[in-house]
Amino acid sequence: MTQQADRTLLPPARTVRIREVGPRDGFQNEPEVISTDDKVRLINALGRAGHQRIELASFVRPDVIPQLSDGIDVLRRVELPADVERMVLVPNSRGLDSALEVRDLFDDVALFVSASETHNRRNINRTVEETMADVEVMGKRIVAAGLKCSAVIATSFGCPFEGRVSLNRVLDLAERFVEAGASEVGFGDTTGMANPAYVSQFFATALERLPGVELTAHFHNTRGQGLANAYAALEAGCRSFESSFGELGGCPVPAGSTGNIATEDLVSMFHEMNVQTGLDLDKAIEAAREAQSVLGRQLTSHSLVAGPVAWE
Amino acid sequence: MTQQADRTLLPPARTVRIREVGPRDGFQNEPEVISTDDKVRLINALGRAGHQRIELASFVRPDVIPQLSDGIDVLRRVELPADVERMVLVPNSRGLDSALEVRDLFDDVALFVSASETHNRRNINRTVEETMADVEVMGKRIVAAGLKCSAVIATSFGCPFEGRVSLNRVLDLAERFVEAGASEVGFGDTTGMANPAYVSQFFATALERLPGVELTAHFHNTRGQGLANAYAALEAGCRSFESSFGELGGCPVPAGSTGNIATEDLVSMFHEMNVQTGLDLDKAIEAAREAQSVLGRQLTSHSLVAGPVAWE
Repeated sequence: MTQQADRTLLPPARTVRIREVGPRDGFQNEPEVISTDDKVRLINALGRAGHQRIELASFVRPDVIPQLSDGIDVLRRVELPADVERMVLVPNSRGLDSALEVRDLFDDVALFVSASETHNRRNINRTVEETMADVEVMGKRIVAAGLKCSAVIATSFGCPFEGRVSLNRVLDLAERFVEAGASEVGFGDTTGMANPAYVSQFFATALERLPGVELTAHFHNTRGQGLANAYAALEAGCRSFESSFGELGGCPVPAGSTGNIATEDLVSMFHEMNVQTGLDLDKAIEAAREAQSVLGRQLTSHSLVAGPVAWE
Repeated sequence: MTQQADRTLLPPARTVRIREVGPRDGFQNEPEVISTDDKVRLINALGRAGHQRIELASFVRPDVIPQLSDGIDVLRRVELPADVERMVLVPNSRGLDSALEVRDLFDDVALFVSASETHNRRNINRTVEETMADVEVMGKRIVAAGLKCSAVIATSFGCPFEGRVSLNRVLDLAERFVEAGASEVGFGDTTGMANPAYVSQFFATALERLPGVELTAHFHNTRGQGLANAYAALEAGCRSFESSFGELGGCPVPAGSTGNIATEDLVSMFHEMNVQTGLDLDKAIEAAREAQSVLGRQLTSHSLVAGPVAWE
């Protein structure tokens, strides 16, 4: 009775969508290349946890990112339910050429830019304008191929080189992505500079300016504020999140930083708050435990240690 | 100009009070006893960081908690500005007898109970009613001695043995503490079971029911939600927080859990949000680094690795 009474203090059920980005963002940032067999095994475990959206591969030069050079093999070999949305990341038109040769292997192509000029240049050696000109061409090709086009805007909440990044600049870029065909725009806190008060204002403004577009929050736990930012985004109306099992990935700067927010920690918080994710938390933790075993080191996700809250 | 523009997206300045609990809650949970010299050195570093409220010692049986057996020496030897509020924890009337023998060494006596019957019994081997009967006597003695009386209610957000704990039960206990003389009541999330949605409702209700009483949030980062809970409490009107440098302390169950929220991570988040703490973040990180050096292991605070956000 007491338990009932307190449960009613929570807000009514809300539903969010979570995209698991560990197989791309996470595996890319591992110093050792993970074998294709292990990748497939881990991704299948993510599927068993109920993930409906997974970023699976990236069409980048294998000499630049050897960690992801087996992308097509991974896409071919994973055993996921047919309704899972499979996303691939494409950096430029050449990458898109390669991707479209195997277009049946995925559903969604993510294009990206950094909101900060300096970060974009250091990341992909092009200006923001050069990147966006390419985006406009690529977006049309993706849509014409019958695929979903998504966008990712890195350093949306701050840049390690330039400091603050104007919200207007970020939203202008988001609008250009939408004009180019994107139906979803993700905002990345690339080096963990966001804080919940800013995130709250950011998403309130963004949701107003981009009605009908799925706006996705992508936070890092660099300064321990990852879940606080996710909560602030949720309260501001955001219903789409990215996270990585085991807290893998993210920007490894500064050295020793933790990565993306951990999927299992995000799911644990959401379920406790009566926010539906469609995921099985125990199996999500199990997938992170398998990653820990494959990588041979203690991962930084809290739920791996503490487990779900046991109310009974 | 861009930076100015985005800074204005933050809410107006707010001010909070932070109590550093590392020297009691943190040191108590270390497997090795820290030397008095090291304790004094670390507490002095906390003072240099600008802490205005520190929990310094506990009057408990030295055979039960040898980690804190040098409490009186610590109180005598620390070099803190005169206006720092020095808190000591007292479990029972015998502890209070000992404390009052050296009453000039501190300003504030914290009494505590667990909201959950089972946790209270396992923690101090008494029923909640027995504990509260003692509180009523002790509170009067503390106030009569010219000291501030504070209260701590453990398992306020859930109990590892009993599960949910009724908010009404917690607030009834808080009211009894206030009647006994407490001018501040802290709510402890002893094993990290709180979530931000519940915390929001909790503090909104508590602040309404206990006007004029300082209500203090004490969160653990067991499931990575520590700062999310702090943000939710802040937004609900809470202006008083406890934290521990280096993320020390907290309940070491389950094994491997992180501890209290880290002072330097909390301060980093607050300062980013334009919330004033009166602390110097760099020096707060420095104090945690000294603790890391004394304890000889990597501590789990994120700011120790990532540092403050560098906007320029």
